[in-house]
Amino acid sequence: MPDKTLRMRRAGRTDANRPIMLAIAGDSAAGKTTLTRGLVDALGPGRCVSLCADDYHRYDRSERRGLPFTALHPDCNHVEIMEQHLQLLATGAPILKPVYDHSTGELTRPELVEPAQVVIVEGLLPLHTKLSRACFDVTVYLDPPEEIRRGWKVARDTGARGYSEDQVLAELERREPESEAYIRPQRAHADVVVRFAPIESRDDPADTPLSATVSLRPTIAHPDLSGVLQPGLSRAMHLTLERDADGRPVESLHVHGYAPREESVAVEKAIWTALGEPDRDTPECLGRIGDRRSEPLTIAQLLLLYHLIGVDR
Amino acid sequence: MPDKTLRMRRAGRTDANRPIMLAIAGDSAAGKTTLTRGLVDALGPGRCVSLCADDYHRYDRSERRGLPFTALHPDCNHVEIMEQHLQLLATGAPILKPVYDHSTGELTRPELVEPAQVVIVEGLLPLHTKLSRACFDVTVYLDPPEEIRRGWKVARDTGARGYSEDQVLAELERREPESEAYIRPQRAHADVVVRFAPIESRDDPADTPLSATVSLRPTIAHPDLSGVLQPGLSRAMHLTLERDADGRPVESLHVHGYAPREESVAVEKAIWTALGEPDRDTPECLGRIGDRRSEPLTIAQLLLLYHLIGVDR
Repeated sequence: MPDKTLRMRRAGRTDANRPIMLAIAGDSAAGKTTLTRGLVDALGPGRCVSLCADDYHRYDRSERRGLPFTALHPDCNHVEIMEQHLQLLATGAPILKPVYDHSTGELTRPELVEPAQVVIVEGLLPLHTKLSRACFDVTVYLDPPEEIRRGWKVARDTGARGYSEDQVLAELERREPESEAYIRPQRAHADVVVRFAPIESRDDPADTPLSATVSLRPTIAHPDLSGVLQPGLSRAMHLTLERDADGRPVESLHVHGYAPREESVAVEKAIWTALGEPDRDTPECLGRIGDRRSEPLTIAQLLLLYHLIGVDR
Repeated sequence: MPDKTLRMRRAGRTDANRPIMLAIAGDSAAGKTTLTRGLVDALGPGRCVSLCADDYHRYDRSERRGLPFTALHPDCNHVEIMEQHLQLLATGAPILKPVYDHSTGELTRPELVEPAQVVIVEGLLPLHTKLSRACFDVTVYLDPPEEIRRGWKVARDTGARGYSEDQVLAELERREPESEAYIRPQRAHADVVVRFAPIESRDDPADTPLSATVSLRPTIAHPDLSGVLQPGLSRAMHLTLERDADGRPVESLHVHGYAPREESVAVEKAIWTALGEPDRDTPECLGRIGDRRSEPLTIAQLLLLYHLIGVDR
């Protein structure tokens, strides 16, 4: 029956309307959801859908208790199904996505996800395999210093998820070998690496927003920032040519948390206009961290929106 | 980014080991599970996996209460996802299959299904669309007379599923327009139509097993029965050339429930030997209906096994 493949192909649909696929990878509490939320809100639900790759957990919380690895391990996840679903979304097909309920630790009823013009996939392992990486147009890795991430994880998990600080710290220690083996290697496969951190050489007040270093690898075409990086705005951000940790050349955009807000906002406006959406103001949903604002986060989000808005494929 | 499709294809797996796909369609309580179970047991779990297309229900039981259609309606099912999963299985890929729990009426945690050498898909709507049909190598429709099916449904749903007889009969009435519109039209797309019924012209005792009429459409190559249909065995079964209800030519195998058991068993042995598995006896798991046996069911199952065992694709 050699004609079955052909029959299926003929009877199927074409993938004319394939979405732009953005991956946001990083360790637990690295800021993936915060970065994603601003992008989703800026694009609007009609244009953008986001999903979490951690829903592909193979075991629920009680089953994981007896296992020799944590939720970070690829064997703890349906990686092959994740690859399959990413391929489907990338070709414009809907998926029935599994659902992991973080509040109960249970796997529950799956949900239909129809691809929009933009699909954002955030999670622990979206860039783990060659096939999963092949599904994305733009890949991002969130790389805060470990002590910053630790603080974020303690704050989140002792709050919303009801753990004690000791429990969270013990879990971080248990996960460390798998972070090293599976999460951090994804950094090398990112087109954009975003690192939020204080600037160590400065003695800024404690409430100064974190600065951002946005590493732009020459693996994709980034926005031309020459019109934005004007001398009068260099306190808000500047660009340097560097070698990455692995020796590869990279352009690093340093966005300063200590810059006066009006200068950061002028940079934002310039990038937003360059995106070809001058009629609207820079969306207010960008830069939000809970009820605070961060201009470096806004700028990082704008640089990603460049790849998602009005792209000519 | 026109290379993404290619990148995904290159990074993906080949579909060298694609399974044989068998569909068993039919209305509620038409005997799909009974027919399937014997095939699955005869092939063994290493060679065969079966799944139920009714797991693709879009709504759970409580959600369906407010809807203007029943579970039989295509809009009540994730038909597009079912098509997608059938394509994946047909090309040798695993799926994360949704699960509908008939005992609670809830949609629950999905389960991984890895395709075996044979994949059997039984359900209400597996042959509903052109694309779903394209995924199968052999398609079967179970077509008992309505009064027989009604009796089976009452017996099952008042027993295992805890409804009253009046509730089951009311539900059958409510479903009838959708049975007519969506379930019964699938009969026209089946390679094999199986009808279990008493022979009306005879006055057999009430405990006589139902006879089977197995319509073999010339849409696939059926086994050569000339070696089996010997004069001495004509009480067990005979073959006639007929016109189907829609006027198309069809070969009808009449398997008689009243035949002496030893003649039926001789026919079974002859078919089983013709399948090229002469070393083993005809599997005892065939023909089982609860704790009773039916030789016509055994023979119908053997004719289907012909397409599943030792097929040279």
